[in-house]
Formats: sequence, C-alpha cells, structure tokens
Amino acid sequence: MTDINGVRYYRYDKPYVLESGEVLPSLTIAYHTYGKLNADTSNVVWVMHALTANSEVADWWPHTVEKGKFLDPEVHFVVCANVLGSCYGTTGPLSVNPQTGEPWYGDFPDVTVRDMVGCHRLLAEHLGISHIHTIIGSSLGGFQAIQWLVDEPGIASEAVLIATDVCCRPWEAAINESMYMAMRCDPTLGERRPDAGAAGLAAARSIALLSYRSHYAYDLTQQDREPQTDIFTRRVQSYQRYQGKKLADRFNAYSYLSLCRSADAYDVSRGYASMEDALSRIDARCLVVAISSDILFPPENIRGFATMIPGAEYKVIDSEYAHDGFLIEYQKLNEIISNFRK
Amino acid sequence: MTDINGVRYYRYDKPYVLESGEVLPSLTIAYHTYGKLNADTSNVVWVMHALTANSEVADWWPHTVEKGKFLDPEVHFVVCANVLGSCYGTTGPLSVNPQTGEPWYGDFPDVTVRDMVGCHRLLAEHLGISHIHTIIGSSLGGFQAIQWLVDEPGIASEAVLIATDVCCRPWEAAINESMYMAMRCDPTLGERRPDAGAAGLAAARSIALLSYRSHYAYDLTQQDREPQTDIFTRRVQSYQRYQGKKLADRFNAYSYLSLCRSADAYDVSRGYASMEDALSRIDARCLVVAISSDILFPPENIRGFATMIPGAEYKVIDSEYAHDGFLIEYQKLNEIISNFRK
Repeated sequence: MTDINGVRYYRYDKPYVLESGEVLPSLTIAYHTYGKLNADTSNVVWVMHALTANSEVADWWPHTVEKGKFLDPEVHFVVCANVLGSCYGTTGPLSVNPQTGEPWYGDFPDVTVRDMVGCHRLLAEHLGISHIHTIIGSSLGGFQAIQWLVDEPGIASEAVLIATDVCCRPWEAAINESMYMAMRCDPTLGERRPDAGAAGLAAARSIALLSYRSHYAYDLTQQDREPQTDIFTRRVQSYQRYQGKKLADRFNAYSYLSLCRSADAYDVSRGYASMEDALSRIDARCLVVAISSDILFPPENIRGFATMIPGAEYKVIDSEYAHDGFLIEYQKLNEIISNFRK
Repeated sequence: MTDINGVRYYRYDKPYVLESGEVLPSLTIAYHTYGKLNADTSNVVWVMHALTANSEVADWWPHTVEKGKFLDPEVHFVVCANVLGSCYGTTGPLSVNPQTGEPWYGDFPDVTVRDMVGCHRLLAEHLGISHIHTIIGSSLGGFQAIQWLVDEPGIASEAVLIATDVCCRPWEAAINESMYMAMRCDPTLGERRPDAGAAGLAAARSIALLSYRSHYAYDLTQQDREPQTDIFTRRVQSYQRYQGKKLADRFNAYSYLSLCRSADAYDVSRGYASMEDALSRIDARCLVVAISSDILFPPENIRGFATMIPGAEYKVIDSEYAHDGFLIEYQKLNEIISNFRK
C-alpha cells in the first residue's frame, strides 16, 4: 500500500478474471478514505463514483464529506475507490500492460460493472471490511452499488441509490452510441498516445452534458448575455466547447470508451432468473432517489425499479438541475439521507 | 418555371439580400403544389417543412395530403417550398455560385429563418397568392410560419404551429453545438465535394435523433431482441448508425450546417421591441400544438409563447413519440386541426 497526496493504492498482484473471461494480469486500485475505521468495523460508508469522477469524494461531491453531513468523517469511515477502466489510479487503458511493457490504450479488455464491483470487493477484503454500514452510489456509481447489493446479499445494512438504474436502457445506449460515432470521426483515435481522440472526446462530453442537464438546466443557466458578436453566435456554444476541452484535458478517450461500454453492458439481473429475482435478493434497507427533471434516468423508471427492491423508500428531489442535480442538490440530499437514517 | 417529377422550380434572377447583408446573386426555389388554386385564391394552405425534409409534403407527412384530411387536395391548394440552404432543389451550399461557376460548399453565406420566409414571399408573389388561408409549420417549419405571421400581419387567416418555438433557446443551441463538434472531428469536412463530412453528418444525425425521440420513444421502440451477439452490443447501436448513414446518403454536411445555424440565429422578435411586441402583431387565428413527451420543444415553453399570441388556442397531443410525434401522430393532428377549423 502506498500513499501519495491522499490517494492510496492497493496492488493486487494476481490475475483478475473479467466477466468476459479475459484476464488482467494484475490490478492497482486507487482509493481514498476519510475518518477512522472503528473497532468493530461497523462505521463504513462506501461511496461509488460516477463516470468521470475519481476516488476523492470530498473534491467532486462538495459539502458531503463534512461534520454533520451524510459522509461525516467524525462518525463514518468513508471509502471511495476509482473504478476499473478509469484513469485516476486504478487499472485502465492508460496503465501499462505488464505483458507488453506498454500502455494498453485500445487493447484494454472490455470491463463490466460487475468487474468494477469485484475490485471493490478485493479492496474491502484488503481493508479488513466484511460488512458495510451504508453503500452510496449515484449514476454509474449507483449501477455498482446495486450490482454489489444483488451479488452479495448481507454486504450492507443500508444503501442510498441516487439518479441511477438497474440496467442500461435503449435511451442511454443510444446516447452512448452517438458519442462513439462522434469519437470515431476523430482520426487520431486508435493512436497509441494518451491524448489520442481528444477532439472526439470533447464532442462526446458535449453530448453527454445534454443528457446531464436537459432543457431545464440549460435554459436556466445558459441564456445569452448581450451583446453576442453576431446573431449566429450563442453563449452556450463556447460553453459546450469549453466543457468538452476541460474533460479532454483531464481524462482520455480510451478510458471514456471503457466506462461507457461498461454502462452499455449493464444489466444487474444478468445471471439471475429475472430482474425481479435479482432485486429481491437485496436485503439492505434502501433509499432510492430520483431528480424530478432528470432525463437520463427519469423518475418514472427509478420509481419502477424501486418497487422491486424489498422495502425500498423512494424519494424525488424537486430540482431543475436534471441529472447533475445529484452533485448540485447536496443540501436536499443531506436532508433526505438524514431523515432516512433516523 | 420548370416541372420535373412533380417538383417545380421558380427561378428568381435578381440579387437576393440576406438578413446578414450578404447577397445571393440569384435564387432557385423548388416547390410542390397539391390541388387547385380557386378563382378568388382563398383556398391556399402553405406548409413549411422541418430541418431535413423537402417540398414533397405527401411523401414526408403521411396521411395528411388526402381527401378529408387537413391538407385536402379536393378543397385546398397546398403549397410547400424547399427552404433556402437545403439540398432538395432550392438554392443551398451545393448549388453553383454563378459568380465562380463552382458549388458554394462551405462558402455559402449564413442564412436566417427570415431569409427562408423571404423566399416563401417571393414564391407566393410569383404564384399570384396575396393571402393564405392557413399557414402550417412544425419544428423549423414552425419557426418560418411564426416569422412570416409576425413580419407580415394580414398574410394569413389561420395558422397551425406544431412542436415549435419563437426563438432558439440555449438547450437547442447546445444540441446544435454538440453536432458541430462531432462534425468538425471529421477531417473531410471542408473538402469541396458533396459527400465531404459524411461521417460527421451521420454522428450529428444520431445526436439529433436523441432530441427528436427522447427516452420515451427509445425505450418504447428500441428494446433489445434476444439474442445480442455479446453483452456490449445493443440493438439501438446499429439503429443509430443506420439512421446516421441514411441521412448522410440523402443530405449533405454543408446544407445541414446551414439549416442548423439558421436555427441558432432564430429569434422571431429580432427587430421588434420585445417578444411580446412581436407576437402581438400576429392577427391570424392560431392553433398552437405541443407534444407531451417532446424534450426538444417542451410543452411548457410552447404554452408560454402561445399565451403571447392574441387569441391563440393551445393543445397538447398526448404521445410517447416525443418531437417526432408531429410526423407520427397524424390522426390526432387531423382531429385537432379539424376541430380547430369548425
């Protein structure tokens, strides 16, 4: 275990068999912890991050890792691990393939949400954690949380599942394919360098933002300020380009494809008789949260799967920030989670 | 005037000054008509088409140009002209610039919705039509309809404005910019050939479809059929690629950019004191129609501008087909328009 700037690394030096049957020769899992594990290891809160985030929860989820909030380091031992396929320390396409001595890039094998959960389980074992008090996940983080709860009944006492789903529906797969089509237009995708496909990645991010914000948030926050340079120029155009470049500068196209493809293949019920059968395995007390204006994971879908989780409580946050509301509406989340825990 | 396969062409051999101040040396306007203009020219129904359609209404709007329907060729004289900037006969980027003898391609000047309306007005004059009974427009067609009603009070007795808006909101401009970012990744965009930027255009179409269908229609129509080849392959992926290629085969990137940019610049109130002032000029009896699941032109926005049009009637079609509902829900449209005309 090494520790650099708050990130810790767990090196798992054995082959890791993926759901596809392919094998990663070894794994590195980057993670953060906040607070102190208590003697009976009963205070663990495990946070799963969304698509392009990292293990540093206190950074990407403002006002949650604080005294009195739902990730209280004076009370909880908060763990968050960077997911398999990402680029913030955990094994992914930019990691060196020990068998070739070169980064994987486009040769990195496809991974699934279940493969990500497998890494969390290895890390939990390494940390001496056999039971989690609360599992919390939003978006792709919610995918992992639900998969873990289904695959390992008894793992957690409680779970908070926010703006997420139990499978990748055609709508989400269509958004992803649109991103891939844009990325494939970038002739540098496929080159063996970290910034290959950067322009395509920026376009993909711009597309993804549409699904995170929806018309509610765009029309709320991106109105033109006078004067524009000409009638064909809109403020939101440079905003989209800026956000695209910002992601391309901090992420990479190969990891982005890897994570999106894991979402394409997500179906928590794979290997079980049915979705009902899979979700009925969940024995944690669950709070399921939707955001009223979310078009990526619409409330009606979330309400639908919540009814299949035994005893789950379903709440809707009234917000115009759409899917991104899970990051922005931390006050409402704090309140809902605090009430749930009472 | 020439007539080939039902398309007619009006050649306007004078310079046409665009809203930007740039000048097109001449214009060709392609149009279709159905039915017969009556003696007092009181039976004109003018249809404005949406983004990638053409002047052949009976083709792209099924079951509307029929006896007993709202475009009844036994009663009405239906006119539809291909819009400026398009590629179905009216002057656009693939037309030959008479000053160079070569197609315009990327040098085609930016046009606005008001410029499109100017072409409709020239055609109306050419056809001896000084008054229109009903103007009908959906989506970008609605933009043109509203602009015409505002700019030329008295032009029409009635208007039907479907799934449309009075300006381009940040949300729509953000979708457009995402398409441009994808198109700019295609290194062939900029080349002086009709199929330049075809892969980028296909990606743009895939993005646009998301906004036309929304999660309602995708989850309704694009569920996977068993068995998929592997867990990472989804039926909707090939659907998106197929639809993208289909548009790239029948359209071109330069026209697509031209039309989308006209939408970016759309603000029916430009040149007037305010939106209220502009819309208060409309003296036609208006029916304004929204589609319940439309995320591109959400019902709340349509209801909002409908209240600013004097005496306008507002109706919502309950449908899961989102924006594309305007093409699919022809039965409900026929019913609503028939009731409106009573």
